[in-house]
Amino acid sequence: DIVAGVEAFFAAATQPKPLAGRHVLVTSGPTIEPIDPVRFITNRSSGKQGHAVAAAAARAGARVTLVSGPVSIPDPKGVDVVRVETAQEMHAAVFAALPADVAVMAAAVSDWRPAEVAREKIKKAAGDPPPLAFVENPDILATLGHDGRRPQVVVGFAAETANVEANAARKLAAKGADYIVANDVSLQGGVFGGDRNSVRVLSAAGIDVWPTLAKDEVAERLIALIAERLG
Amino acid sequence: DIVAGVEAFFAAATQPKPLAGRHVLVTSGPTIEPIDPVRFITNRSSGKQGHAVAAAAARAGARVTLVSGPVSIPDPKGVDVVRVETAQEMHAAVFAALPADVAVMAAAVSDWRPAEVAREKIKKAAGDPPPLAFVENPDILATLGHDGRRPQVVVGFAAETANVEANAARKLAAKGADYIVANDVSLQGGVFGGDRNSVRVLSAAGIDVWPTLAKDEVAERLIALIAERLG
Repeated sequence: DIVAGVEAFFAAATQPKPLAGRHVLVTSGPTIEPIDPVRFITNRSSGKQGHAVAAAAARAGARVTLVSGPVSIPDPKGVDVVRVETAQEMHAAVFAALPADVAVMAAAVSDWRPAEVAREKIKKAAGDPPPLAFVENPDILATLGHDGRRPQVVVGFAAETANVEANAARKLAAKGADYIVANDVSLQGGVFGGDRNSVRVLSAAGIDVWPTLAKDEVAERLIALIAERLG
Repeated sequence: DIVAGVEAFFAAATQPKPLAGRHVLVTSGPTIEPIDPVRFITNRSSGKQGHAVAAAAARAGARVTLVSGPVSIPDPKGVDVVRVETAQEMHAAVFAALPADVAVMAAAVSDWRPAEVAREKIKKAAGDPPPLAFVENPDILATLGHDGRRPQVVVGFAAETANVEANAARKLAAKGADYIVANDVSLQGGVFGGDRNSVRVLSAAGIDVWPTLAKDEVAERLIALIAERLG
């Protein structure tokens, strides 16, 4: 209705814009790694958390570049979206989008890809197929965290199914990140694909355990934290 | 508008129902095969062609069971949808849905699955990970085509990127199918995920090359062919 529309307009217009003039780079969604022209490896990331961060950054006044793997959710409003499939494509798109003031690497990037991609669909033959060999993908977060063009604030995500805090603490040091947002993505948790998230935010200052929140609220809090850090 | 709604209602009401009283079983979409709790192998099938076949069968008056892998398109109207993830789940759901008069196996089922599924997310470690070993999945089409409860009409799909006709002809014989709908799903063709399809329909009578059509039109033609065969 018209009244609600007018209210929403003025709420947006009068909302504080702590990231005005800033460029925020966000990655989101899964990556996919082809095995052949039709088959690929991917993961259960829906892109909901990364897209929510991009939307929250835009609402906070930032210019936002969202580098997204294949997702089935709509593009956030007011955000430049760069679509990619593989980790290598995401890596290239992230570095092409620099300079940025802030990077939030929320995508669930494939750690590995098949060592060879078959040019034609691999045919079924008698017996089991040969094992699939893998090579390591570029570590986008670690590369960015140690790059000469490193954004002022770098945030990584750690999707874990066990030893969540220990793994996230190790990542904080190894990746050159200011924050690691750790979440438990074991299937029981329903985080991948779901609308809520239970995160722990690790930084040099320690661990902050957030309550279970809507992914939009996690995004708002994270953007507030980043804005405060930028000063 | 109301006039169009009334017209659509009467068009549907007066449409011939050649499959009235028949049970049509359709599979659609990809299957996914877990590697660990977050990673999996899948393929580029969108489910559009299989879902269109299910919708066309329902419009032709059939009771329709659609066994679908994970897709991001809506359920067709008037169809019972059974959601599955893996080839083994799809196999079980297909046999649980019998008896049927017609089976159209349009899903892009994973030929193989990882020999072992890790209980926790596989951690990145120094060096490349060990190769992934596979085992063969059940061949749903071939099992159904040779089963004692075989539907009267069995239709398989053959998604190929090379030697389309030769591979499809081999499948017709091997799978015990009445028809194989062969299509070229090389990336250049844009069939997987796209709205149009170029198919060749193989049967004991020979090969019928259909023009490039909307997937809905391919579905309508296929249902007409099946209805004629059922007599």
